[in-house]
Amino acid sequence: MNNLRELLIDEMQDILHAEKQLVKALPKMAKAAKSPKLKAGFEEHLEQTKGHVARVEQAFEALGEKPKTKVCPAMKGLVEEGEEIIKEEGDDSVRDAGLIAAAQKVEHYEIATYGTLCTWAKLLGETAAHKLLGANLDEEEKTDKKLTKLAESVVNKDALA
Amino acid sequence: MNNLRELLIDEMQDILHAEKQLVKALPKMAKAAKSPKLKAGFEEHLEQTKGHVARVEQAFEALGEKPKTKVCPAMKGLVEEGEEIIKEEGDDSVRDAGLIAAAQKVEHYEIATYGTLCTWAKLLGETAAHKLLGANLDEEEKTDKKLTKLAESVVNKDALA
Repeated sequence: MNNLRELLIDEMQDILHAEKQLVKALPKMAKAAKSPKLKAGFEEHLEQTKGHVARVEQAFEALGEKPKTKVCPAMKGLVEEGEEIIKEEGDDSVRDAGLIAAAQKVEHYEIATYGTLCTWAKLLGETAAHKLLGANLDEEEKTDKKLTKLAESVVNKDALA
Repeated sequence: MNNLRELLIDEMQDILHAEKQLVKALPKMAKAAKSPKLKAGFEEHLEQTKGHVARVEQAFEALGEKPKTKVCPAMKGLVEEGEEIIKEEGDDSVRDAGLIAAAQKVEHYEIATYGTLCTWAKLLGETAAHKLLGANLDEEEKTDKKLTKLAESVVNKDALA
């Protein structure tokens, strides 16, 4: 950990792994979701996430580096949490609420990481990488807001008992 | 997972464990931080975090429940990530940048969780719990913004090489 550039590359490997894990997890979450709006939301975010993988890979290239991934235990735990909810029995709308909660934790993991990456890329004067990572940050923040709106509407009245 | 109330209690057990882990982790992060501003920031957030534990416990009481904790693998991973950075050798200001990044991931984990808890407490008409959890959410969001500002200032010019 000698300079900020090393730290930036290391953290980019972390988010690239996270995004790739999410590309695998989102179809399962879409399949498990009962609310048609939530299902569509997960499917839409899957397409976005594929774009995020591409942008991070482009950011590596902009820095003259080869895209690599690094396993992050926290993100692994977040994805496992989502998978546990998929398996749970019970009220469909309550499971949808749980899926949204798991998805928002993942979004916030990504928001924190892209926020950090943007700050560091800016400090290093890496304009192209900054722009690519900022575009991903922007989409993650919008997705999080959409999920908050969905969370207020998916739960049916019976589940409020 | 039969009703939203069960899910709320379950998620409150998760955040209570997270806050208690953070009470243990923050003194180590404050000790490791080289920037006096960052050190003071972690110390201030430690005091806040003790207050968050108290508020979550009060929210359990407001719901007529006994405060319990539940281990969350993701939060455990996040705290471990911070501890790894503490042990790293290298430039002091780069380690400070790494500590801020780890802290912001924890903040965002908490922001996501409190956001979810507030939505659910509101849907359930649990006004007292909603207010307590909302107060914690507000402080976590402010801490995250403070950390972003610090991240832009702690890295010295040598580390940008």
